[in-house]
Amino acid sequence: MHPFGQESPNTGMAGEEEILRLIQKHLDDTSPPPPQGIGDDCATWMPPAGETVLLTTDPVIFGRHFDASHEPEHVGAKLLKRNLSDIAAMGGHPGPAILALAMGPDVQLEWLTRFIDGLATTCTTYNIPLAGGDIASSEPGIFIATLSQTGSAPNPVSRVGALDGSSILVTGALGGSLMGHHLHFEPRLPEGQWLAIQEEVLSMTDISDGLAKDLHGLLPAGMQAILDIENLPVDEAVQATGANAIAQALCDGEDYELLFSLDPQTDLNAFLEAWPFDTNLCPIGSVFRGEPAGILVDKNTGTRIQYGNGYEHFKTTD
Amino acid sequence: MHPFGQESPNTGMAGEEEILRLIQKHLDDTSPPPPQGIGDDCATWMPPAGETVLLTTDPVIFGRHFDASHEPEHVGAKLLKRNLSDIAAMGGHPGPAILALAMGPDVQLEWLTRFIDGLATTCTTYNIPLAGGDIASSEPGIFIATLSQTGSAPNPVSRVGALDGSSILVTGALGGSLMGHHLHFEPRLPEGQWLAIQEEVLSMTDISDGLAKDLHGLLPAGMQAILDIENLPVDEAVQATGANAIAQALCDGEDYELLFSLDPQTDLNAFLEAWPFDTNLCPIGSVFRGEPAGILVDKNTGTRIQYGNGYEHFKTTD
Repeated sequence: MHPFGQESPNTGMAGEEEILRLIQKHLDDTSPPPPQGIGDDCATWMPPAGETVLLTTDPVIFGRHFDASHEPEHVGAKLLKRNLSDIAAMGGHPGPAILALAMGPDVQLEWLTRFIDGLATTCTTYNIPLAGGDIASSEPGIFIATLSQTGSAPNPVSRVGALDGSSILVTGALGGSLMGHHLHFEPRLPEGQWLAIQEEVLSMTDISDGLAKDLHGLLPAGMQAILDIENLPVDEAVQATGANAIAQALCDGEDYELLFSLDPQTDLNAFLEAWPFDTNLCPIGSVFRGEPAGILVDKNTGTRIQYGNGYEHFKTTD
Repeated sequence: MHPFGQESPNTGMAGEEEILRLIQKHLDDTSPPPPQGIGDDCATWMPPAGETVLLTTDPVIFGRHFDASHEPEHVGAKLLKRNLSDIAAMGGHPGPAILALAMGPDVQLEWLTRFIDGLATTCTTYNIPLAGGDIASSEPGIFIATLSQTGSAPNPVSRVGALDGSSILVTGALGGSLMGHHLHFEPRLPEGQWLAIQEEVLSMTDISDGLAKDLHGLLPAGMQAILDIENLPVDEAVQATGANAIAQALCDGEDYELLFSLDPQTDLNAFLEAWPFDTNLCPIGSVFRGEPAGILVDKNTGTRIQYGNGYEHFKTTD
């Protein structure tokens, strides 16, 4: 269904309190009573003693992250999952989340309800309390839901830390986002939590903007990434299309897979054997000191890999 | 200046990375290096051991919370201060904040820069690290900045807890929001922190939707609030206009003052004498069991106080 409409009951005909009641009803058990949940000035949370608190925020925006062709339940689920992917990328365990809604008066209450249902179901799946938030009106045609997600980790893994000679590995398969993976993915929480307690893991990130772009975030100053470009783990559906699968794996973005570096001393085969998950795990290259720094090099040809900029959320002139 | 324009350099001509660089440059010292700050998948924070973590989110939206007549620096400052007021209302000490921007390609870079300058200056004033966030594009004419603010408190004060016979007190003066107070206020952080460690204080909130509406949040089931309506602390500028000052004090909203209840056994004069701040502190009434419950009663006439619904953020049909 379309998120916007004048004819049906919409948010402009309801007041803030009516919308809030509707949301609380559909959040049900995922919304704890105050002061932990909705109804007080702040949500409260007692993180595990001695652990570092993690904090991330990501929105879903109509026309940008979804459109009228997407099921509202899937949009609500995506909002939580894309934030959980950031928690996974630090090796964290998720805590409560808070939701800020900015929407036009023409948002249909049925669409909003189904969106909240999808968010609530996903909160239940991952055991996330939805602990508070804000509702505000914006212009017609606007729907922006911004989630802020907490987490905690005894030893969070930064993007920074790869060394000269580090292997680079990736979970899952790349390039399927435009074929639906951007809605139907699993944030790699157990994988990230396991990786964070392996001392061989030096740095980690998730792939939200595309392998090529996000790999730059792992590259220390003065280093290049040497990639086995022929053997990237490309999504089967992408391979089947016969399109430029490698380009999609490098640049499409929204894979929400984990990308990480290992200590150069690591026995790579032993590490792969110790991997306790069904999720695919694939070494894709290494990091080496080299000039010019900051580029990706094809392992087989020794030439610089040419690619776009990955997924730039803001660029309107591409 | 107007936030939107086609003629000058605007965000649509820049990419996400250029905007991010601009923001980081203007945030300067308020943006710590990663992983505490911008540049990793999550911001990290080590809250004080044993304290409860607080979490709140509030946006500033063009056309709703500000318009082209407001200085962008003041809008940036307001974004942080309205979130800090929620932390103050629980008696918390603020931790790091994260910022989610959703804006049209016609947002002028100069306007955005001045907005960030105002936010950064205010972060410095209150010693808040701006530790991360997200930038996303929206439709032309849209500017929505959503801040999520952390805090911590050894003993957070909920809205719930007033008893039969509790006095109700308020800090500062009410009703000046439409005359500029909604931009130029001080979040009552030291006052909230002090109140949170007084065992006489049973419950607390901040006044964001107007005294009449927010007072309902403090009312336990089955109780009424008896208000000394003639002696409400009304903002001097409002009194000078000769307008219906009491109605403004009850309903305008965005006062960002603290409203709290005391244990009925409290020696009110001793409590007022112990108050260590220059900020005005005023007893405005009491909570009593009575029928019908949930109403406000004029102490002097014994009649029900009639008022609007306070400030409803969403209602478009008023």
